[in-house]
Amino acid sequence: MERSLVSELREKLNETVIVMGWVHRIRKLGKLSFLILRDRSGLVQCVLNNKEFDIKGLKLESVVRLEGKVQRKEGSEEAVEIWTENLEIISLVTEDLPIELNKEEMQVNIDTLLNNRVLSLRNQKINAIFKIEAVLSQGFQSFLEGESFTQVFTPKIVAEGTEGGTELFEIKYFEKKAYLAQSPQFYKQMLVGAGYERVFEIGHVYRAEEHNTVRHLNEYVSLDLEMGFIEDERDIMKLEERLLRYMLGAVEEKCKEELQFLQISLPNLQNNIPAMRLSEAINILKSEYNRTDLSSDLDPEGEKQICEYAKEHLGSEFLFLTHYPKHKRPMYAMPAENTLTHSFDLLFRGLEITTGGQRIHNYKQLWDSIASRGLEPESFNDYLEVFKYGMPPHGGLAIGLERLTTQLLGLRNVRETTLFPRDRDRIRP
Amino acid sequence: MERSLVSELREKLNETVIVMGWVHRIRKLGKLSFLILRDRSGLVQCVLNNKEFDIKGLKLESVVRLEGKVQRKEGSEEAVEIWTENLEIISLVTEDLPIELNKEEMQVNIDTLLNNRVLSLRNQKINAIFKIEAVLSQGFQSFLEGESFTQVFTPKIVAEGTEGGTELFEIKYFEKKAYLAQSPQFYKQMLVGAGYERVFEIGHVYRAEEHNTVRHLNEYVSLDLEMGFIEDERDIMKLEERLLRYMLGAVEEKCKEELQFLQISLPNLQNNIPAMRLSEAINILKSEYNRTDLSSDLDPEGEKQICEYAKEHLGSEFLFLTHYPKHKRPMYAMPAENTLTHSFDLLFRGLEITTGGQRIHNYKQLWDSIASRGLEPESFNDYLEVFKYGMPPHGGLAIGLERLTTQLLGLRNVRETTLFPRDRDRIRP
Repeated sequence: MERSLVSELREKLNETVIVMGWVHRIRKLGKLSFLILRDRSGLVQCVLNNKEFDIKGLKLESVVRLEGKVQRKEGSEEAVEIWTENLEIISLVTEDLPIELNKEEMQVNIDTLLNNRVLSLRNQKINAIFKIEAVLSQGFQSFLEGESFTQVFTPKIVAEGTEGGTELFEIKYFEKKAYLAQSPQFYKQMLVGAGYERVFEIGHVYRAEEHNTVRHLNEYVSLDLEMGFIEDERDIMKLEERLLRYMLGAVEEKCKEELQFLQISLPNLQNNIPAMRLSEAINILKSEYNRTDLSSDLDPEGEKQICEYAKEHLGSEFLFLTHYPKHKRPMYAMPAENTLTHSFDLLFRGLEITTGGQRIHNYKQLWDSIASRGLEPESFNDYLEVFKYGMPPHGGLAIGLERLTTQLLGLRNVRETTLFPRDRDRIRP
Repeated sequence: MERSLVSELREKLNETVIVMGWVHRIRKLGKLSFLILRDRSGLVQCVLNNKEFDIKGLKLESVVRLEGKVQRKEGSEEAVEIWTENLEIISLVTEDLPIELNKEEMQVNIDTLLNNRVLSLRNQKINAIFKIEAVLSQGFQSFLEGESFTQVFTPKIVAEGTEGGTELFEIKYFEKKAYLAQSPQFYKQMLVGAGYERVFEIGHVYRAEEHNTVRHLNEYVSLDLEMGFIEDERDIMKLEERLLRYMLGAVEEKCKEELQFLQISLPNLQNNIPAMRLSEAINILKSEYNRTDLSSDLDPEGEKQICEYAKEHLGSEFLFLTHYPKHKRPMYAMPAENTLTHSFDLLFRGLEITTGGQRIHNYKQLWDSIASRGLEPESFNDYLEVFKYGMPPHGGLAIGLERLTTQLLGLRNVRETTLFPRDRDRIRP
């Protein structure tokens, strides 16, 4: 007989089935015991006759194989339970659990949670986070495939940094020094120019971030895309709007149960995402929030405030900020109006989740831009080469997968959406 | 007017269109010039009247925007061409190309090809390789999603190696030493035990391989999966058979043109993949190929010979080898018959493209296996923890994406299927 998943049992009423999974909870009531079994698809109550089964030594989280008949649960019109005929222990737990998993809310701090990461993932609420994150990533991929983007894998071992050399992790690469890539930025631009025109990558990026904050990780998943033959950054913003609508739609469709566990309602993206210039945002913060301390960028508090404003006055939990000044953007950002750039950030519920924009595609202009920042254009030769041989106007964006998930699920710390986070202090488990 | 792709032109006969792309070739014939324009979807001939257009200075690979009327090509029933009304240069090339791109076969050696990687990717045959590779990777993903696997992202910065510490790249991680992960092996097993039961990862892995061979890369994409509640390794082998059938089907469906460029016929996977014990394979090689030098494993030549044998006698280009001896497998391999393991390799056209097997799920047995190899079980604590708290029987596999693509396309060097390969000598571009 084949194993049945818990989620399939409702359709097997009165049949004898085999289920396999973890012992989630046990309760003894007079002549009967009630064992809640958990598999990847859910929970089911299994009833055992204490005369037939001695489960005294059976600790929580042991893995079992249980055979029995599916019955309608008393007093319920929908739920089913299994009347156990056979119980086999596949993997017996002999030690007490270091943390309590079978509570709806795990009452532990983030460090305990991460130190016991694998066990804490068995908690249904925590488990649900990564199912949603996987669907977001898959949504990114399927949407872009539909738009004739090509998936690429670019190296994470690089000879130089992308933005001129700070916050890099150094690797001992045989006799050479190498670094972990901070972003696939150069490579994705090069691949647009290599004729693919539209590329995306889902992969890790690395930042040797000195500060431990709830928003930063030293290794995170970047959802990157780059496309050629655009008019300007607005083409990228329009694409992102449709992309996010698709990704949220995928979560809505595939993660009904997970959203219910986490009591999440998804943001409404039926309308267009409003856009305002960064300077306008700063003016609003000055006048509405008395933030006279901001000049050319927002701080985390400012991001929260302008999102609050956008929600109230523009009816959107998403907000594009555009026209960042040159000195706040990398050398490849396409200039606009003398001191500004064709660039944007996307804020969502108080946090930046995307940076994007149009890039310079003219060789001479890019060379000059690099030099004007005190960098050596010669050290960017590998990157610059393709710009000599026909580069279309292009632009792109990067979405931080963990940040997006964190904001979507209303969590406090980006580590909660990382299976095994790496930060200033943590490289294990 | 919106840009049309070259692939859309046949359906726009007699319409005026805008196309954008690279100048692939130019030919002057009397009063007319013929410009072949290339975009991500293909090539189209554009006819220009030399009286109206002076294209003397227009070097190959310049990026142009061209407006004109789509006409039936003379003497053809299918092909179309554009009679040019307007030509605008978007990105002018002023230097001669370092390599010739517009030939069907690029006559350059692998080093020249990789040194000029971005330009060589514009060659249609080379470009096609990575479209096929992307479809293979996406096929892996969609198939496993359909089998209720969860996509995961595990850290590539790790505190210890997976197999005991050789061939690791060292990272300076603030005050600590860390390493680049050789495989997600431990993490994917831990995530099976974390309740996901079935997980997959598509991501880079790193091997500090000292030797430069045509089969090895120091950074490659590993298609990894792991699943719980299996009987033994044969469940994994059956899954891989269906998985490969699906991936090849995706290539057949989505890469018709690319397969044509490369003149590739896909292997037939209608029948089951034959399996034989490693010891049996060695016996065959002894008797049929006089390979008396082989004892407990195959060398590259032996892999080729046994695949030749399998093709001829078993009618398959794929071959599973099973029951590898313990000392040839890592400490987590499930033992079988005293000295052997529940493990397998998959060979394809003379090369190993997958390693897989059942893993030990009993804590004590795993601890002993580690110790029996002279390793310190204590240094594997992060990994071992979950085995104390209920681990189902499980197993998995890893497919090298570049190797699979190389074999499928009949290429000689695994670098040909890597956008920007990293090897003993190469960390750029």
